[in-house]
Amino acid sequence: MAPPKYKVKDIRLAKKGQASYEWARDHMEILDSTLGRLKRSMPLKGVTLGFCLHITKETAVLLIGAKELGARVAACSGNPLTTQDDVAAFLASRGIHIYAWAGQNPKEYDWCIDQVLSHGPSVITDDGADMNVKAHFDGRFSKMPILGSTEETTAGINRIRAMEKQGRLRYPVIAVNDADTKHMFDNRYGTGQSTIDGYLRSMNLLLASKRVVVAGYGWVGKGVAARCRGMGSRVMVTEVNPVRALEAHMEGYEVVPMSRAAPAGDIFITCTGMTGIIRKEHIDKMKDGAVMGNVGHFDVEIDTKYLLKKSRSVREIRPNLDECVLKNGRRVYLVGKGWLANLVAAEGHPPEVMAQSFSNQILAILHILNHHKKMENRLIPVPVEIDQSIARDALAAMGIRIDRLNAEQAKYGDSW
Amino acid sequence: MAPPKYKVKDIRLAKKGQASYEWARDHMEILDSTLGRLKRSMPLKGVTLGFCLHITKETAVLLIGAKELGARVAACSGNPLTTQDDVAAFLASRGIHIYAWAGQNPKEYDWCIDQVLSHGPSVITDDGADMNVKAHFDGRFSKMPILGSTEETTAGINRIRAMEKQGRLRYPVIAVNDADTKHMFDNRYGTGQSTIDGYLRSMNLLLASKRVVVAGYGWVGKGVAARCRGMGSRVMVTEVNPVRALEAHMEGYEVVPMSRAAPAGDIFITCTGMTGIIRKEHIDKMKDGAVMGNVGHFDVEIDTKYLLKKSRSVREIRPNLDECVLKNGRRVYLVGKGWLANLVAAEGHPPEVMAQSFSNQILAILHILNHHKKMENRLIPVPVEIDQSIARDALAAMGIRIDRLNAEQAKYGDSW
Amino acid sequence: MAPPKYKVKDIRLAKKGQASYEWARDHMEILDSTLGRLKRSMPLKGVTLGFCLHITKETAVLLIGAKELGARVAACSGNPLTTQDDVAAFLASRGIHIYAWAGQNPKEYDWCIDQVLSHGPSVITDDGADMNVKAHFDGRFSKMPILGSTEETTAGINRIRAMEKQGRLRYPVIAVNDADTKHMFDNRYGTGQSTIDGYLRSMNLLLASKRVVVAGYGWVGKGVAARCRGMGSRVMVTEVNPVRALEAHMEGYEVVPMSRAAPAGDIFITCTGMTGIIRKEHIDKMKDGAVMGNVGHFDVEIDTKYLLKKSRSVREIRPNLDECVLKNGRRVYLVGKGWLANLVAAEGHPPEVMAQSFSNQILAILHILNHHKKMENRLIPVPVEIDQSIARDALAAMGIRIDRLNAEQAKYGDSW
Amino acid sequence: MAPPKYKVKDIRLAKKGQASYEWARDHMEILDSTLGRLKRSMPLKGVTLGFCLHITKETAVLLIGAKELGARVAACSGNPLTTQDDVAAFLASRGIHIYAWAGQNPKEYDWCIDQVLSHGPSVITDDGADMNVKAHFDGRFSKMPILGSTEETTAGINRIRAMEKQGRLRYPVIAVNDADTKHMFDNRYGTGQSTIDGYLRSMNLLLASKRVVVAGYGWVGKGVAARCRGMGSRVMVTEVNPVRALEAHMEGYEVVPMSRAAPAGDIFITCTGMTGIIRKEHIDKMKDGAVMGNVGHFDVEIDTKYLLKKSRSVREIRPNLDECVLKNGRRVYLVGKGWLANLVAAEGHPPEVMAQSFSNQILAILHILNHHKKMENRLIPVPVEIDQSIARDALAAMGIRIDRLNAEQAKYGDSW
Repeated sequence: MAPPKYKVKDIRLAKKGQASYEWARDHMEILDSTLGRLKRSMPLKGVTLGFCLHITKETAVLLIGAKELGARVAACSGNPLTTQDDVAAFLASRGIHIYAWAGQNPKEYDWCIDQVLSHGPSVITDDGADMNVKAHFDGRFSKMPILGSTEETTAGINRIRAMEKQGRLRYPVIAVNDADTKHMFDNRYGTGQSTIDGYLRSMNLLLASKRVVVAGYGWVGKGVAARCRGMGSRVMVTEVNPVRALEAHMEGYEVVPMSRAAPAGDIFITCTGMTGIIRKEHIDKMKDGAVMGNVGHFDVEIDTKYLLKKSRSVREIRPNLDECVLKNGRRVYLVGKGWLANLVAAEGHPPEVMAQSFSNQILAILHILNHHKKMENRLIPVPVEIDQSIARDALAAMGIRIDRLNAEQAKYGDSW
Repeated sequence: MAPPKYKVKDIRLAKKGQASYEWARDHMEILDSTLGRLKRSMPLKGVTLGFCLHITKETAVLLIGAKELGARVAACSGNPLTTQDDVAAFLASRGIHIYAWAGQNPKEYDWCIDQVLSHGPSVITDDGADMNVKAHFDGRFSKMPILGSTEETTAGINRIRAMEKQGRLRYPVIAVNDADTKHMFDNRYGTGQSTIDGYLRSMNLLLASKRVVVAGYGWVGKGVAARCRGMGSRVMVTEVNPVRALEAHMEGYEVVPMSRAAPAGDIFITCTGMTGIIRKEHIDKMKDGAVMGNVGHFDVEIDTKYLLKKSRSVREIRPNLDECVLKNGRRVYLVGKGWLANLVAAEGHPPEVMAQSFSNQILAILHILNHHKKMENRLIPVPVEIDQSIARDALAAMGIRIDRLNAEQAKYGDSW
Repeated sequence: MAPPKYKVKDIRLAKKGQASYEWARDHMEILDSTLGRLKRSMPLKGVTLGFCLHITKETAVLLIGAKELGARVAACSGNPLTTQDDVAAFLASRGIHIYAWAGQNPKEYDWCIDQVLSHGPSVITDDGADMNVKAHFDGRFSKMPILGSTEETTAGINRIRAMEKQGRLRYPVIAVNDADTKHMFDNRYGTGQSTIDGYLRSMNLLLASKRVVVAGYGWVGKGVAARCRGMGSRVMVTEVNPVRALEAHMEGYEVVPMSRAAPAGDIFITCTGMTGIIRKEHIDKMKDGAVMGNVGHFDVEIDTKYLLKKSRSVREIRPNLDECVLKNGRRVYLVGKGWLANLVAAEGHPPEVMAQSFSNQILAILHILNHHKKMENRLIPVPVEIDQSIARDALAAMGIRIDRLNAEQAKYGDSW
Repeated sequence: MAPPKYKVKDIRLAKKGQASYEWARDHMEILDSTLGRLKRSMPLKGVTLGFCLHITKETAVLLIGAKELGARVAACSGNPLTTQDDVAAFLASRGIHIYAWAGQNPKEYDWCIDQVLSHGPSVITDDGADMNVKAHFDGRFSKMPILGSTEETTAGINRIRAMEKQGRLRYPVIAVNDADTKHMFDNRYGTGQSTIDGYLRSMNLLLASKRVVVAGYGWVGKGVAARCRGMGSRVMVTEVNPVRALEAHMEGYEVVPMSRAAPAGDIFITCTGMTGIIRKEHIDKMKDGAVMGNVGHFDVEIDTKYLLKKSRSVREIRPNLDECVLKNGRRVYLVGKGWLANLVAAEGHPPEVMAQSFSNQILAILHILNHHKKMENRLIPVPVEIDQSIARDALAAMGIRIDRLNAEQAKYGDSW
């Protein structure tokens, strides 16, 4: 059955969505200039692209941009809760085949991915690998000719890597997340700031002097820890990787196992991409009033079932903040039901960092279209030239000049 | 004419307001324990109190608390834009004579203050001195017997001091703002955080690497500058006081006059309490895309008339963010129409800091009731014992123990 | 008996001392311009001045400067260990009556003060009040006609205040330390940096990730805590003042009593000006390897007698670092025998901050000479005009321009 | 000709060197426990090792440790200026064949390397590749049977890489510098701190508020920039790599080309490993009073010839600080004649970080001895197991526990 043209919450929100879109575009100079340069040659003419991304004002700039380069664009949300409905409406009004609204149940979420795949995309841009998993293991789509895919997140790359290890990958996937100009900026500065934003909106408590537990000291954890410290918090870090643990310790954070962090923390932020980080045994030890949330990818880092189903009572005390009265009588609080707090309770990353990430996306898509014949069915890094050129564009967009190696220096670099 | 019992936007919001109130109260242990101790003696029995404060969930804790100590309580907002309507509804439902709603015009704002004064309060608690000015210079109220007043802000104290200098003060005013446990915490950490909150909500731009201009390096400016730096911004400071300017310089900020900051800044935050800080001549030099807002007291720090009336066009591009297309073609953005960005675009200070400020308020009110006969009609500091006891209570509430001087040390301190 | 012309360790060090002096003078623009302006009128002609200050290259700039304004200058060190012998030699070579060398015993220290007083100074500039105490309570000097004094330190002011309280002060003392341009800069940024310098030189250990205990959160403690954090340390603070304790807590430091800090700390820095801060009971609980030192004024903050006399063994393991093997078998380390670590193990404050402090000194001395007849025998603040003018000069010396209130603003400041 | 047993400045310094050695060893727990574990099997019995490293108290712990594992040890300094003579004397007294003293001329420096190679080492541990270059291209040594080498620095690795590219490498070289537990800690936190130490000792100026120019934003530059900021400086960064430049910008540093930094900076620190960073054209634009120094590897980053030979006059105004009066009349200052400021003017990295680096060294040496037959003549990374085990040991040495993946999590990590 042919997919409907689009499905959004309320098409009348399009005008509000347009203002959001314009605001974002004005602050995504790098993407804008990348797109501008490409527009002359219309390199996506005749190509169908499928996107499974958080539907935010920044994503709108990418999708509209892809369309302006000639593509037919179908898109759904990479998460059941994070769609900005006005932006989705605006995208629909602009001819994007968009299937997304905030607050989907799992069935609806699935249906949306199906619609995008039904458009028969040549390249898939994914955030967390849900669409790629379907394109591999759902009988309806597992034979569809797909040239390749790009993946936005650490969590998605981990899943793709598991598929690769078991020899199941049927087309190349570019690990956009692993580009320096992506993860060193988006994951760190983007999530760092938007996490502060999401937590402040949902709980409105003082961060200064509070003990904040940051679970995971990857790029996201680094960014979150730095920003919490910048807001005056005392930060504890939990890790499983000893090198990262040592780095966190040297940065002056208190490194402890979660069992020791649980009774000490005032606020908890999971940033691991792993499952089962904050478990029943931790929750039961928390102080009355503890607040916890997640900015990793899936809602599996905190045992939300225990919180939302086994508590003595649950009520939404503030928007995106549930009060759970535990059996032990203590009250603990959950941000955004354990889904990405920075997207559910705030607006996700600011446009400036998404511009870098999405420049990587658009150039990676083009790379697949141009080179897919020579690419193996593997997880593939973003070519370093793309990475460097985005960094140069970003500096140029901000009017920053840097030095270049002169001849003597280049020679010195090659000598012993 | 007798004032109506209350006037709010929609009394049906009371239930939502109650949840907000409970959340705040749970995080205002110091105030809670202060009130708890006092409750046994009902020291406000038979007293009428008038409040002119931002009507937030934290203020609700103060007002309900005063009522529980026996007072008749009348209250209005110290600002036409900052009332949280659900909280106002909740207060009305609890028997507070509340006259407040968000988005008042000047006439409505005035009317609300009149209603509070019509209740004949013995003590006035003010935020910015609007009620005190009326109680002195409006014929209807200027002879009303008032025992004294307390003032919450730097801006209000400046106005009271001007009245005192000219010999016009007709009752004592306690400068609650000047208590160490108030301004060193509320003005600094409270405004610091809530300013970040307000700006992020209204503009959703990356703070990291942006050049933020902080006008004024008093306690508010210090807090705002520290938090912006904590979020990764490069901070410029403008000042008129050379000692403060020097301190900002030593802290590593770039100290410049506004004429030089104007063309360099990405984001502007006025924190002065003074008028005419960002003027036409500055606005016209700003970069396309510059964002400006105010967290001082009144909406006089930025020339909002020039922005909102003389621009080629004005539109609200995001909630609480107006895009002003200047005659020179550049677009600049104004947060919350120049009113307190941290209250208009966010929720004001978090409850923890307000607990300290309002503990000062309640103890200052009691001080007036107990000692007004011996007090001169002057601006009077909060007694140091109150200040110290609040600090001790705050530490105790957080379970922090500190050292005490032993006998030998006390003797050493008195020796030479 | 007439005092000798001077007494220093080795007059042949004068040339090396001159280079030091020149380096300091080149970085004390504010003092230099203050002195330059005054030189035309030679306001100290015929006046004898007595100084009791750390004899460093920066002090040399003050003393030579005073001489160039016409004064006869006699000086000794405010501390038995902190004299830079080359600087003392240089001062002697330039006609300063200097009595100072590093490593004095108490008797020698006393003798030096006596020599300075024997010159019959009209004004005394003191650092810690030792000279002033002698000028009051030593029969040989207690009747000497002295017009007034200036005091450089918090510790000295505390002693003068004790004398004032008991009605024993026989001439006015200007509290130079309490000038904003002194304590907010010298005590904070000066001691902050020189403490890092002294500890690094004496122990050469990594500060990053270490737990540093800062005792006292006055201006010195604030500066030391900030710099330790800046070097990557995790900082604990001990305090007796609840407001300061609360401030330290809000800044994100861990606030604890010394009994809890003692077993947790890796490095201890006392900054209190009080006695008996680190006592036997604390030392016995410390970890093997703990390092402790003092940057308050006197060597009374740590129980050095217990360390140096009651330990199983003591040896100097590095310059200015004594290893004390306690009875419990643990080794703890003492910097500079408990005297000012930043002066004993490093060179004291850098010239830039001393320039501000000494500008206050020279202007305070002139203030006494000009106004002593109208001054009470009390502790007197530095006039605010002096404070402000020094701040203006400091900004000008660095080429920093700031805003000034315009007429409209000045009027606004006086209105209500 | 057989090499002499040792050559040092003064063997009588051995006792002082021993105290230094003990102090270092006590703070190198990781290395100590690594060595302790190995000691049972004496794995270096019968092996001759050659070391070309800065001869500091920390290096002494490595060399004595290697000897205690059974090795014959010959060592010289990797730099003509950085030897601590007392440590060298102590090493000689303990049977290390040491050829090192501070202040060598190029000929002497060469001679020392020759002596070490004359011992016929099986493995070479190098710092900057001078010994490896000789072992390849000096006829006397280029045929000597060498099993492999380890290299400590970025600069050395760059030279080895150049040799590898041209097919000239005749044995495998392990890139110890590139181990996470080396460069993320030693280069960053070690150099960061020791640079502050070296600059403070040599210039004793206030860092707060000064404009510090950090050339290069690799791991060393990152560490130096962070510490300068921590001391209150305003930091400018120069780079040639756009990704690093962008990262520095996002961290809030001002990124500029050297031509713009030169006239703006107060203090310059080169951290690049490259040549010709601060050239005549930059020096001539600097402000009167500018201070510059180098913490990269060789003395080629600043044009010291221009400074020391072409200046109008040069004098040592303080230890390790030369005043150069330029032809344009301005005075600029050079730290440590352009050699490693943190080693020449201070003591190099603190022992805690060297413990990690040298644990990598000792394990890399063993790795070569055990696996050299299977290793290619290439630049080879430190095996990840070594890296991780050092991180685990480091955490254990500090009593830090971390989480481990449980079975469910491990499974999740392998799933999609």
